[in-house]
Amino acid sequence: MPLMNSLPSSLLERAVDEVSRLPGIGRKTALRLVLHLLRQDECQTEALAESLVNLRSGIHYCSVCHNLCDTEMCDVCANPKRDHSTVCVVENVQDVMAIENTQQYHGVYHVLGGIISPMEGVGPSDLEIASLVERVQAGGVGEVILALSPTMEGDTTNFYIYRKLQDTGVRITAIARGVAHNDELQYADEITLGRALLGRVPFSA
Amino acid sequence: MPLMNSLPSSLLERAVDEVSRLPGIGRKTALRLVLHLLRQDECQTEALAESLVNLRSGIHYCSVCHNLCDTEMCDVCANPKRDHSTVCVVENVQDVMAIENTQQYHGVYHVLGGIISPMEGVGPSDLEIASLVERVQAGGVGEVILALSPTMEGDTTNFYIYRKLQDTGVRITAIARGVAHNDELQYADEITLGRALLGRVPFSA
Repeated sequence: MPLMNSLPSSLLERAVDEVSRLPGIGRKTALRLVLHLLRQDECQTEALAESLVNLRSGIHYCSVCHNLCDTEMCDVCANPKRDHSTVCVVENVQDVMAIENTQQYHGVYHVLGGIISPMEGVGPSDLEIASLVERVQAGGVGEVILALSPTMEGDTTNFYIYRKLQDTGVRITAIARGVAHNDELQYADEITLGRALLGRVPFSA
Repeated sequence: MPLMNSLPSSLLERAVDEVSRLPGIGRKTALRLVLHLLRQDECQTEALAESLVNLRSGIHYCSVCHNLCDTEMCDVCANPKRDHSTVCVVENVQDVMAIENTQQYHGVYHVLGGIISPMEGVGPSDLEIASLVERVQAGGVGEVILALSPTMEGDTTNFYIYRKLQDTGVRITAIARGVAHNDELQYADEITLGRALLGRVPFSA
């Protein structure tokens, strides 16, 4: 199917158009997905469409940490057993899920909703940085953990947040960088390995 | 994200469930697509949902050839310039589009809606074979071109249709099998190359 200029139906054409607007889905994949739905019960298509519309219209962002949730406050922020004095700053919802899956973190989060990226036109005011500063200034926060991706954009954002928070007296930490668990040392890139050497820590058995 | 047992919202959970029912889309991809929709305008999600529901409820199958269309009869069957005495039998809608894209075919189609596959529980009665036989018996068809995939299932289906049509007197042909255009001969598989030799045709310059 080199060209796809001959869809036999305008309804099909429109559905393929809409589905192929999703990231990573081309017209050929969109056609395959849409034809799959046509082979299934009509109720499956209705359930899919309804779940998307309900999500888009019903979703809330936690008023404290800006994570996705069903109500005004997310489960983490509403949990009295979590350590509310430790705030982990992450880029997005997936990062919260990734950290929750480690089962190593018992504090709360602050979801920026992105990362400073001049190339993509994302500046500090597009992110939940002002609300983080307010949250720290309101008191009760002892430590802010910067847990952004170890990239140029992540470093820029880390530095920006550090500058904004440095006068508040809060302890600011960043997640450790070094060689990944089970990595073979000879295949680690030079920057990672160099930083792991510079950032060496006292050994404890 | 090795586990994904901690989606922060039941609305998100449900949308991810529904999207990941689509073929070839796992939960991780589904989450990425759904979070993408949350970042876009609400109208994009509504347009997507509406296009799928409209497609599922509004689509027609051509009463003659069973191709997808918007009305009772598809554009090909409704076109008086096409050769209605030549019927090309294909497995599905994508195959019609692939053949149309060659711009080499001016006859009409008959879309089986699948292929005989005992492994997947698809028998002749699940396909539009009886309607093909009726169509030929009704008269006006001079040639039936079998254009199914050159696989075991395709061969089985071809043979079944041949048996059903052999007493009608219609001319039955099959698309040519041989080495593909621009293939390097040394990399062609033995069966393809062997059949291309056995099926050699008079050379014309």
